[in-house]
Amino acid sequence: MRIWRRTPISAREVACTASLCYVFAMSDIGQDNPVLVELTRGDTVESWHRGTIAVADAQGQRVLALGDVERPILPRSAIKALQAMILVESGAADAFELNGAELAVACASHGGDPVHIEAVRSLLDKAGLDESDLACGAHWPISDKAVSRLIRDGRRPLPIHNNCSGKHAGMLAAAVHLGLDPRGYERPDHELQARIAGIISDICRVQLSGDGAATDGCSVPTWPLSLAALAQGFARFATGTGLAPARAQAADRLRRACFAFPVLVAGEGRFDTIAMSSLASSVFVKGGAEGVHCAALPELGLGIALKVDDGAKRGAERAMAEVLAALVPEARTALAGELENELLNWRGLRVGQIAASADLRRALAAIETSPRRAEISARSGV
Amino acid sequence: MRIWRRTPISAREVACTASLCYVFAMSDIGQDNPVLVELTRGDTVESWHRGTIAVADAQGQRVLALGDVERPILPRSAIKALQAMILVESGAADAFELNGAELAVACASHGGDPVHIEAVRSLLDKAGLDESDLACGAHWPISDKAVSRLIRDGRRPLPIHNNCSGKHAGMLAAAVHLGLDPRGYERPDHELQARIAGIISDICRVQLSGDGAATDGCSVPTWPLSLAALAQGFARFATGTGLAPARAQAADRLRRACFAFPVLVAGEGRFDTIAMSSLASSVFVKGGAEGVHCAALPELGLGIALKVDDGAKRGAERAMAEVLAALVPEARTALAGELENELLNWRGLRVGQIAASADLRRALAAIETSPRRAEISARSGV
Repeated sequence: MRIWRRTPISAREVACTASLCYVFAMSDIGQDNPVLVELTRGDTVESWHRGTIAVADAQGQRVLALGDVERPILPRSAIKALQAMILVESGAADAFELNGAELAVACASHGGDPVHIEAVRSLLDKAGLDESDLACGAHWPISDKAVSRLIRDGRRPLPIHNNCSGKHAGMLAAAVHLGLDPRGYERPDHELQARIAGIISDICRVQLSGDGAATDGCSVPTWPLSLAALAQGFARFATGTGLAPARAQAADRLRRACFAFPVLVAGEGRFDTIAMSSLASSVFVKGGAEGVHCAALPELGLGIALKVDDGAKRGAERAMAEVLAALVPEARTALAGELENELLNWRGLRVGQIAASADLRRALAAIETSPRRAEISARSGV
Repeated sequence: MRIWRRTPISAREVACTASLCYVFAMSDIGQDNPVLVELTRGDTVESWHRGTIAVADAQGQRVLALGDVERPILPRSAIKALQAMILVESGAADAFELNGAELAVACASHGGDPVHIEAVRSLLDKAGLDESDLACGAHWPISDKAVSRLIRDGRRPLPIHNNCSGKHAGMLAAAVHLGLDPRGYERPDHELQARIAGIISDICRVQLSGDGAATDGCSVPTWPLSLAALAQGFARFATGTGLAPARAQAADRLRRACFAFPVLVAGEGRFDTIAMSSLASSVFVKGGAEGVHCAALPELGLGIALKVDDGAKRGAERAMAEVLAALVPEARTALAGELENELLNWRGLRVGQIAASADLRRALAAIETSPRRAEISARSGV
């Protein structure tokens, strides 16, 4: 696996004539990724988000490559569904008679609402485990309602409130079913994580190994891999194309679980839940920390992977909404709220806009009118 | 006033040989600003923040210019102290017998803790006004403790909890003292805002006018002006150099109020409060929305203004801490927590680092060894 390290390629420095003035015109990390999303206030472009987007089919043929799609990024929670594959493939899901809600929460960055906590507890219980086995650490829930509930009850958050507790419960259940010692299940050198790395390697056609892994916020490994590989991987996750039958069936079962229980994957009012509530069966979508967002489009046979350079969720979600709207006709209506341009202030006054950059719009317009898009649509009957 | 509008200067587009692949290599907003801060997880640079930094003296002579320091940005809350000048200059502060806490909260992005609410109420009360006069709108307080208190009491936030309520109270008090109708005091065409624009224009040596203003989150005008102008303005605010005596005295009084009551300017545990609690008299510092941060260094006679392109507070605060540490010897100790490299996860494991980029470090090293720095230090006796 190629690991991109901390070596800026170019740094043009211009010393002014005055000895006290130093102008460093440009510093590159890998390369300059294009601006994807711009925020304008009044007449001024106030802030902008640069980033990278890859859209590919299961053969790795690219429909869109914006920015440096070959540079490895850390996929974080955007690949929880791939990390959950072992739960189904290992036979654990069948052995423990897991239902759709439990499978969905194993793929989730959940809000910590009662519906999520209940599903995680049930998953743990079916596998003969409990909350004390979770190695994810604790943080205040993502859901405001869940935070309020804890505060009103005078309580502090526990590991079960961690947005990753479902993923951890799923990993633990898989370990137990596989006869592995669940202790240390989160470490990169644990057999469970080695197997998960093997599954992701096969799906994304890369070669991940434990010693290349970084550590995620919840303490499990997060392996560097490129957006190009992730896009192809999500196309394969979307369709099963090129996967062994048992692996393809596991992908299908996890997708269907998330489509059936989209609120379990994130929570009320959140991007992934909104998207899958309206677009189930045509769009599987999952965000992660630091501006990563991935999607699988079973009907079109495509995968999408994007990352915003600066890690901003607002940039990643807006970019994903734009890409989905360009590829899936119903997404423009389903994601109308996410595609809204107006920025309002605390009094509800219109003060500016957030919008796709000219480059992103141009790239998406090119997809929409490309012969490739027509070919995909014809093939999928969309 | 030059207003920079939404016209990308260059957009290199490379169409792949395959008709279905579109690579847009680069899109510029004005120009590429350098990377200031990098986050690394494991071996991968995961996210980074580009931006612009200007450091100048009261004559506008530049000590540092990193990125496009001439492009107008929106200064947001970073210039609240300049917006509060009218409260002192108009004679309102004397007439209403305002104390240091009330002046500090007029310059604040406060946390909504009892100490802040009390100071804002007192300011309003002395001017014969009340909370219903505030036009800032409501949001949940910045302070977690203040949020918890509201939730436990079953209450919703009010305009007084808005981090800008002190600024609004100060504007209202100035309007009343000046005999202006306080209604609509927040609008760009109100006489009060015209006078504030005049003061900022004088301090920053620009020409602001009402029709160039964007609208801030709290509904008052925010005028586009360059970081170069802001840096010079804050050097003048720091020293009074080049300002009329009454204006210089007002600047001195506001600075001293913030130095005496740093917790009023932000809140416990927040950057500006930490910095001014330890570095009072040598560093006045104030952050704003969308990654803007300004500072005034009375002893060195310098002003600092920076903005992170993507608007991230973590990038702006880190960059400001690095610049302060390079210029003010005691800042490296006082801001040790803000300069900490380690990134910890939810379980407290070390998973990565956040650090100044190579370009920022090189630029700051150049300042520290420049003849200009020695000259400034000698002049100020530091």
